[in-house]
Amino acid sequence: MLLPCATAIIYGERAGLNFAFVALCLAAAGVAMTVKRPANKVFYAREGFIIVSVAWLLLSVTGALPFVISGEIPHFIDAMFETASGFTTTGASILTDVEALSKCMLMWRSFTHWIGGMGVLVFMLAILPMAGGQNIHILRAESPGPKVGKLVPKMRDTAKYLYIIYIVMTLAEILLLVICGMPVFDSITLSFGTAGTGGFAVLNSGLASYTTLQQAVITVFMILFGVNFNVYFLLVMRKPKEALKSEEVRCYIIIILTATALIALNIRHLFSGMGMAVHQAAFQVGSIMTTTGFSTTDFNMWPTFSKTILVILMFIGACAGSTGGGIKVARILISVKSVAKELFRFIHPRNIKTLTVDRKKVEHETVRNVNIFLFAYAMVFVVSMLIISLDNFSTETTFTSVAATLNNIGPGLGVVGPVSNYSSFSLLSKCVFIFDMLTGRLELFPMLLLFVPATWRSH
Amino acid sequence: MLLPCATAIIYGERAGLNFAFVALCLAAAGVAMTVKRPANKVFYAREGFIIVSVAWLLLSVTGALPFVISGEIPHFIDAMFETASGFTTTGASILTDVEALSKCMLMWRSFTHWIGGMGVLVFMLAILPMAGGQNIHILRAESPGPKVGKLVPKMRDTAKYLYIIYIVMTLAEILLLVICGMPVFDSITLSFGTAGTGGFAVLNSGLASYTTLQQAVITVFMILFGVNFNVYFLLVMRKPKEALKSEEVRCYIIIILTATALIALNIRHLFSGMGMAVHQAAFQVGSIMTTTGFSTTDFNMWPTFSKTILVILMFIGACAGSTGGGIKVARILISVKSVAKELFRFIHPRNIKTLTVDRKKVEHETVRNVNIFLFAYAMVFVVSMLIISLDNFSTETTFTSVAATLNNIGPGLGVVGPVSNYSSFSLLSKCVFIFDMLTGRLELFPMLLLFVPATWRSH
Repeated sequence: MLLPCATAIIYGERAGLNFAFVALCLAAAGVAMTVKRPANKVFYAREGFIIVSVAWLLLSVTGALPFVISGEIPHFIDAMFETASGFTTTGASILTDVEALSKCMLMWRSFTHWIGGMGVLVFMLAILPMAGGQNIHILRAESPGPKVGKLVPKMRDTAKYLYIIYIVMTLAEILLLVICGMPVFDSITLSFGTAGTGGFAVLNSGLASYTTLQQAVITVFMILFGVNFNVYFLLVMRKPKEALKSEEVRCYIIIILTATALIALNIRHLFSGMGMAVHQAAFQVGSIMTTTGFSTTDFNMWPTFSKTILVILMFIGACAGSTGGGIKVARILISVKSVAKELFRFIHPRNIKTLTVDRKKVEHETVRNVNIFLFAYAMVFVVSMLIISLDNFSTETTFTSVAATLNNIGPGLGVVGPVSNYSSFSLLSKCVFIFDMLTGRLELFPMLLLFVPATWRSH
Repeated sequence: MLLPCATAIIYGERAGLNFAFVALCLAAAGVAMTVKRPANKVFYAREGFIIVSVAWLLLSVTGALPFVISGEIPHFIDAMFETASGFTTTGASILTDVEALSKCMLMWRSFTHWIGGMGVLVFMLAILPMAGGQNIHILRAESPGPKVGKLVPKMRDTAKYLYIIYIVMTLAEILLLVICGMPVFDSITLSFGTAGTGGFAVLNSGLASYTTLQQAVITVFMILFGVNFNVYFLLVMRKPKEALKSEEVRCYIIIILTATALIALNIRHLFSGMGMAVHQAAFQVGSIMTTTGFSTTDFNMWPTFSKTILVILMFIGACAGSTGGGIKVARILISVKSVAKELFRFIHPRNIKTLTVDRKKVEHETVRNVNIFLFAYAMVFVVSMLIISLDNFSTETTFTSVAATLNNIGPGLGVVGPVSNYSSFSLLSKCVFIFDMLTGRLELFPMLLLFVPATWRSH
């Protein structure tokens, strides 16, 4: 919370005192809780999962305090919604007038995206020195994507490299945006939103009022932050061959190019020329696919074909091991390959093909994890939709609002479209959205385990 | 086609000549094609699948001829849509005025539901004497549900029993409806529609103008025809204990009761009393869950909560081994149990539970089949939705029209709601719907294999 304090000092805002106060209280509470070290340091998988889910819930609660205390977001659930949306890099907002917020609040809001992007707890793993093996359970619960194989050995070193890449890329974006003439405050906040694939804007018009060049820079960085960070890691480790082998990233780029081309053709009549149509299509495809959720235009008004493509991209999501959300390209890739393999097996029952990704055999366990993930995903989706539907918005709004929160995107269609927000939902629905954002960010299971009675029984 | 001929004679309709003419042509063609018997009778799985998919396509084409020749449905694709919708027991219609059709056409339309219900080819297996093992491949491709285990030994005898059950239940429904005062023609056609879980009505008002008692009879029979026929088979075989063990059927009944109760509470303000609300809710839940698609009221006007429940039921569908469509309760049950097992495994990593249904271990192969089915299902769904969205109807219409055809239901929401029809879609969309209806009915793979190049290569 020091960054919003600093922002408040620069802009001479009294609202900064709220951050100083909350930061002091939390520091005091933290010191008090760590005075007595636990006698039993043994750590099982379930403790790892529970720590992660409870920590994210606590972060959403404590991060909301400055909003509530300052009165800028008076209702606690609204403030918690906004903070959970920030940390989970969703970018869904209950604010009808963003510009009414003080600069330090806006900075905090966008900064939560940046922290959330790579996972607060992994962040702590890289910064705070902790001993040995128990951290693997936390990392497993927190890392997006079906496998963290490469991250496990020498985990802390790897995490440090990833953070350096993350920081350097964020700084590069800030610099480029400033060079393109964007105000420094906007450059920093929007870069935080891009890096975390979050999507909070600082103007009521979203990103519509920036120049085409500035929007294009953000398009490129959104897409870069949706790439599997293993690829960047391999590039830094000077293994470009291995990096280029990534089928997931190739798939990701093919999907982006195809979707952009189809949408551009479909919306060309809405814009002055084909160039502008391609620009808008690329921005929106990049924004939705990476689950960032920035918008330069109201795609709610686009033809159904374009909207359908965007809804499909919402579910696909970014690459595993990126800061993005959604089901992840890797899981989709494994699913599509399983079906292709099965069709082949029908024709040649005795000729058994193995499932490979990046020319390596996909373990049975990985396929099983993908299946279980998709089942659980569908169940969370259905139950959420049922509760949200009690608010009696259109089926389009109900469906896409759940999709936009569970996949950590932000805007959907209808009432939750890009020029609108989540303020009109009931308290119950907002709580469900908070749950969905956290569940989506933590890849379902840490949050779901909170509801299993066996979790709370002693061994 | 003798049944519509007979209907035409009773009602003195000249349109019956079309059926006589088409029946004669088809019989001649059939004789001509079977004069020369193939030298090589060896039959592989892929031939089984291709026979099934091509046969259903041919049935949809030939079954459409009377509509086209008589001029009652002048456009061929429209007539094929209607026929495919009939045979696949979908019940989606392109007709804006059903009552304009002659009685013999209406009888044919409803009769296709009845034939389609249990699978035309399995029908032939029970009626036509054929030799040995090659039929298993056809049966496997045609039977709804994840396994046909119990049907395989002494297949022909089993099929005969199933047909006797099917015929007796249909006759019972006809009789009951006549006793309740419904005209004989309506009783027969609606019973065909119920037995096949089809959904074609013979009045423009659907089922709204029948008495509450008649509607209630149909509700009960819809639900009965959605039950796994293995259960009836076991009852006939005097194994009531085994029959009652079926977890799938218990699950199916619990879902129907829960959905009815929730919807009745949600719509009670729309009707004169709670009794009527329960009646309407039960009818609609039974109709959608069993994928029949009859309607007594325009549920498009119901609150979003009720509509959301109906949309979820559309996907769940009826029991495996019934005449219904959809994903099937058995598959949902296995999916839910896999997730529960996984959550348990997170907490007790060393304590491995086995997945059981009906107190029997579910084979790994069955779980794998369910996964592959769901992946393929999602892919067909997404691609269909993309093509349909080119027609630029609302996202609600686009989504539910694909759901209503792929799950063999009939009505959806929006433009394809219960008081509306599929006439306003483009030719391309109608072709996609025909494909989806056939794909849904044949449990995906026989139709998908038509698009795999390897299918058409020699061994």
